[in-house]
Amino acid sequence: MSSLPLPPLPARPALPARLGLMLARLTAGLSAALTPATRAPDTAARAPKTGHIALVGAGPGARDLLTLRALDRLRAAEVIFYDRLIDPEVLALAPARARLVDVGKAVGACHWPQARIDAAITAAALTGARVVRLKSGDPSIFGRATEELAAARRHGIPVEIVPGVTAASATGAALGRALTERGETDRLVIATGTCRPGDAAPDWGAMLAPGTTLALYMGVRQAGEIERSLRAAGVPPETEVEIAGAVSTAAERIARCTTGTLAATLAAEGIGNPAIILIRRPKGATTAAAATVAETAAP
Amino acid sequence: MSSLPLPPLPARPALPARLGLMLARLTAGLSAALTPATRAPDTAARAPKTGHIALVGAGPGARDLLTLRALDRLRAAEVIFYDRLIDPEVLALAPARARLVDVGKAVGACHWPQARIDAAITAAALTGARVVRLKSGDPSIFGRATEELAAARRHGIPVEIVPGVTAASATGAALGRALTERGETDRLVIATGTCRPGDAAPDWGAMLAPGTTLALYMGVRQAGEIERSLRAAGVPPETEVEIAGAVSTAAERIARCTTGTLAATLAAEGIGNPAIILIRRPKGATTAAAATVAETAAP
Repeated sequence: MSSLPLPPLPARPALPARLGLMLARLTAGLSAALTPATRAPDTAARAPKTGHIALVGAGPGARDLLTLRALDRLRAAEVIFYDRLIDPEVLALAPARARLVDVGKAVGACHWPQARIDAAITAAALTGARVVRLKSGDPSIFGRATEELAAARRHGIPVEIVPGVTAASATGAALGRALTERGETDRLVIATGTCRPGDAAPDWGAMLAPGTTLALYMGVRQAGEIERSLRAAGVPPETEVEIAGAVSTAAERIARCTTGTLAATLAAEGIGNPAIILIRRPKGATTAAAATVAETAAP
Repeated sequence: MSSLPLPPLPARPALPARLGLMLARLTAGLSAALTPATRAPDTAARAPKTGHIALVGAGPGARDLLTLRALDRLRAAEVIFYDRLIDPEVLALAPARARLVDVGKAVGACHWPQARIDAAITAAALTGARVVRLKSGDPSIFGRATEELAAARRHGIPVEIVPGVTAASATGAALGRALTERGETDRLVIATGTCRPGDAAPDWGAMLAPGTTLALYMGVRQAGEIERSLRAAGVPPETEVEIAGAVSTAAERIARCTTGTLAATLAAEGIGNPAIILIRRPKGATTAAAATVAETAAP
């Protein structure tokens, strides 16, 4: 992923016919329903407007995986701050009058530091605007929502979170397979491959106890470290892995491998972030004996 | 929760005005857009129709937390099999021609056993119908999707999962607080309080390593066991807990307590399932020493 600013959006990209028709009618209806409530009448121009910030989950990518509430907030927005991972198809749902601001956050390439985003969204809301901070997936899961909620509250700006479909759920759907299976797995662990600089790497191996499905977000660049961590924790290298790149979008890529071949497979398939690395370790799974692990780990 | 069949639905309940208007226009548009593609023309009555099953995530409860894709599938459905936890507001989005079947699953009260559900959805699809199996939350997370996917595939029926907003995400939104916080928690563990009869109880204490947010689904009845498991694992009894009952619905209830007072709080507040029990244990959190634990655990 490049850290260069994205070129200007192709304003309203063409859609597949059926979806296009559905969405055109749907957004026309929504727009008509929402405009009176959300647009201050010109005659009230002197009354100070109260701004508002919504941290909106855009879901995993596909436009029709937005919730109705997310669409409502998007249609009512006057300013929309969006991340690098937001699909242009989703942005095309914004009303023509809304100002779109690319804050360009991508893993390892924060073209806007978090403090600048915090300052920009609060400044916009303090002018009385309805601000949407559009985040891929669910804002509560690795969405850096804490900083933005705190900034809004420091300024006394009403703020809400609109939950979204997280990428792990979209991965289960794309694979046609549940993330938890009765008698096999009793927990889903959602973890990140990417940490704040200076923080210790997450202990992925310890997270994958028998009975677990582990969904790793943004872990492609750490694939080698993840392999080592799992091996050190006694996870057998033949443990099943499924990978979903750019899940639910037109660029979706599915790959399958084992924990012992994760880094090699990602490289061979040319899959980069955003990707979900899904590792299942059913309850009955054996633990590789320490000796076997050492042998496997030897170069 | 009672195991008696629900009374017939109040056919199409009244909605709050703004939401009602929005949804009326929205569903009218969708309906118009979808009907031609989904309703077999009468002249083709002799050609065998191909049935289809969609396992659709209805989200946590609020009707506007459905995705656009879920709404699309619901509007196209001819038969809808739904669980006890589906809000009547969501069912009101079904088209008038759709047959609604309450399969009445509730924790500890399966008025339809899973095998009967499997048989019913496949039988309906084999008549050529578009079948929606509507599940609360996301079908891939504790949704028993595996059995229904397998049943569909055994009969060669096309089947898909439509992902939904899981209740943990709605809980973060309801609390106005992220589920993961940089430098504090690097994983979200979604686990169940309820197991298949005969299965060992999940080891909740082991799941709550420092750096974890643990979201327990359907755990109200096991609150005492959960308290004991956490204490035995060295989780300090003053660890923060947030509880969201019936999250995102009109009956939503929020409560706060500590891991040492979980069962007492649920009882005092009268919160039953469905509820999310959210426990945060930041990275820097201390582990109660074994001696202290034993002391605290003593009656």
